[in-house]
Amino acid sequence: MAELNGNLLVAQSGGPTAVINASLAGVIQEAGRHECIEEIYGGLNGILGILNEELIDINEEKSRTIEGLKYTPGAALGTCRYKIDFKKKAESAVRDMDRLFEVFAAHNIRYFHYIGGNDSQDTAHKVHEQALARGYELRVNGVPKTIDNDLPHTDHCPGYGSVIKYVCATIMEVTCDVSAMATDDGACFLLEVMGRHAGWIAAGAVLAKRSPGDAPHIILAPEIRLDEPAFLAKVQEVVAANKYCVVVVGEGLCNAAGDEIAADSSRMDAFGHPVLSGAADHLADIITEKLKIKTRTVKLGYAQRAAAHFASLTDATEAAACGEAAVRAAIAGKTGFMVKIVREQSSPYKWTTGLQPLGDIANVEHFMPRDWFTADGFLPNEKFIEYARPLIEGEVKVAMEGGLPKYVTLAKSPVEKKLAPRV
Amino acid sequence: MAELNGNLLVAQSGGPTAVINASLAGVIQEAGRHECIEEIYGGLNGILGILNEELIDINEEKSRTIEGLKYTPGAALGTCRYKIDFKKKAESAVRDMDRLFEVFAAHNIRYFHYIGGNDSQDTAHKVHEQALARGYELRVNGVPKTIDNDLPHTDHCPGYGSVIKYVCATIMEVTCDVSAMATDDGACFLLEVMGRHAGWIAAGAVLAKRSPGDAPHIILAPEIRLDEPAFLAKVQEVVAANKYCVVVVGEGLCNAAGDEIAADSSRMDAFGHPVLSGAADHLADIITEKLKIKTRTVKLGYAQRAAAHFASLTDATEAAACGEAAVRAAIAGKTGFMVKIVREQSSPYKWTTGLQPLGDIANVEHFMPRDWFTADGFLPNEKFIEYARPLIEGEVKVAMEGGLPKYVTLAKSPVEKKLAPRV
Repeated sequence: MAELNGNLLVAQSGGPTAVINASLAGVIQEAGRHECIEEIYGGLNGILGILNEELIDINEEKSRTIEGLKYTPGAALGTCRYKIDFKKKAESAVRDMDRLFEVFAAHNIRYFHYIGGNDSQDTAHKVHEQALARGYELRVNGVPKTIDNDLPHTDHCPGYGSVIKYVCATIMEVTCDVSAMATDDGACFLLEVMGRHAGWIAAGAVLAKRSPGDAPHIILAPEIRLDEPAFLAKVQEVVAANKYCVVVVGEGLCNAAGDEIAADSSRMDAFGHPVLSGAADHLADIITEKLKIKTRTVKLGYAQRAAAHFASLTDATEAAACGEAAVRAAIAGKTGFMVKIVREQSSPYKWTTGLQPLGDIANVEHFMPRDWFTADGFLPNEKFIEYARPLIEGEVKVAMEGGLPKYVTLAKSPVEKKLAPRV
Repeated sequence: MAELNGNLLVAQSGGPTAVINASLAGVIQEAGRHECIEEIYGGLNGILGILNEELIDINEEKSRTIEGLKYTPGAALGTCRYKIDFKKKAESAVRDMDRLFEVFAAHNIRYFHYIGGNDSQDTAHKVHEQALARGYELRVNGVPKTIDNDLPHTDHCPGYGSVIKYVCATIMEVTCDVSAMATDDGACFLLEVMGRHAGWIAAGAVLAKRSPGDAPHIILAPEIRLDEPAFLAKVQEVVAANKYCVVVVGEGLCNAAGDEIAADSSRMDAFGHPVLSGAADHLADIITEKLKIKTRTVKLGYAQRAAAHFASLTDATEAAACGEAAVRAAIAGKTGFMVKIVREQSSPYKWTTGLQPLGDIANVEHFMPRDWFTADGFLPNEKFIEYARPLIEGEVKVAMEGGLPKYVTLAKSPVEKKLAPRV
């Protein structure tokens, strides 16, 4: 296979994670090891910035900064939620693709790595197909990313281990607090976590249990519709035994009718609009009303996917390795793949990376199997625990200054534009 | 001064913090160094457990457990919000005091240390006065605790440094995320923090700024009533400059009329009850409605006061030292004091402990001075920053197991009861 000389372009897309920048560092550091890769460019704000020819010169960045990306949350290149949609917006999709390949050609981009979740892998797949159709020599390999852990074919997704590690620590800590305050009147604490469709994050909270009686006592995943009477009975049972009950709820939890409970239209904001604020607050209302038990809620929101100060070393290491593997695959002539994590064994944990055709990934959501939950659906079972336990191992060492993390930002030295502005 | 032989009783009260157990460890370890202290007892659930003669034998605990208290959040002895109120409930207050001194006498308690905030110091003060009035030889010294930082006379309160350290890291991390996602449409992120009356926690978030343009861009403390038009103008100005705006709001923020904005009665729960859920959600409603800017909120709730995995080493060290100082003062014959932290200089930071009569502390709330904020009231100024900066320095080393903190619990070996049950 002939060596392909040219420049590399890497970009990030979708919601950031605690380790998406570790993948970026992996791409950059691996690219630096291959002479056939001449320049390393970063595309700002995902595909959207590339369309606007907003490229930065990564070789102008300090190596200290690139190393610092390994523990810096957010998406250092910026990100977007822009989708190139040939079905719904055919005309603009064709225009976008023409423009994209103009940008690629103008900057001799021969390696393209897109770091992201389902939508991003779909974009990478389309770019790959267009390159083939246009006869433009381009090696396109995606790097997986998503806290939701809902990409198919990969054992798990970079970003997932860190979010559940942080959620578990939060549960353990809040439980120390709630249990110390518990009185005979009882108390119910509810933690809302991300996950609109898939319950992987909520389920991950089970790792906070070191013995069966430990919190969390109930985990509500969006895959299983809420059986409200059974839930209330369970809360009451736990409070009777413990004086307090700790519940973790995925934001997308649905009621028996299949509607998201957070979207209950009887909750109104100050302007009379229905509030979509939270599944946990909604459950708290029900518990207060029907069980007369004091409730407290926490909604971690963006804090959970950005909590690099407590990221999983396993996760960060895998994220970087996925970035490296995407480049190595491209150098070896592979294109049209997403890097995946392959588990070799769970205990002791061993893993490697593999490649999966992008066409198998795009727009497929991977849900938790029902048989990874207990029969009553209120907790994940041993199968899930065996799966998830290794993913939170180890702590990332974050540089500190004045008692706070010293996260890095890119200098973002712009690459000179060669095209007329996008119309 | 004659040596006083007898037993020591320590208890915890009020809302837990990340370091209230470090104070407990300080009391216990210092007590172990003095032969005149015969037994070390812990009272469960504050004064309430003591009234029920629920004492545990601390000498039955492993030293490893006591050492582990230095990084374990919550209140290991359990806590309460019980108040002995001679004004409003004179009869039951007298009954409570009689019972308390029965328990003290039955167990030869000669040293009593209560770790807590304003109400707890008030209780300690009353116990001290009653001991004098009853001619019962008892040395009573309180140990300060409160994330709210609202105790007078002490430079700051154990618990405060850790909560603001965690809040700052959260702000930095969420800002990495929000800034990466920002589009021309603009976005406003709002973090709600604790602090019903005092804005110390909200203000502490300013330490996340390493340069003037950094987040947070606006900090709303309960001491300064919300000027809604000025606030909205400021959000708009920041979004125009930055594409995003990060706001920190203390839960007790009041509107121009002096009412808590979180208690706005136009916000209804699913059962038609007014929702008191959050100042941040309320501000988000206003921003969405009036500025048409996308908003996201995070409510850290109990997670912020329990976040021992990222506690300040300065704070934990001071918390333990306050516990030790309370015992040393008692051994030296002092009684009726609260230990306070005395700042010797800010840079480099030097501190020591001192003693303040309990009567000076009880029920006095210490607010942020107005001249520690900028003229427009939207940020704390240099005076505050100089004050707060040293308090977040250093990281507590938490024992880990399987990727999660290994917090300790007390074995709680009960002390044999000698009295009839409380009626």
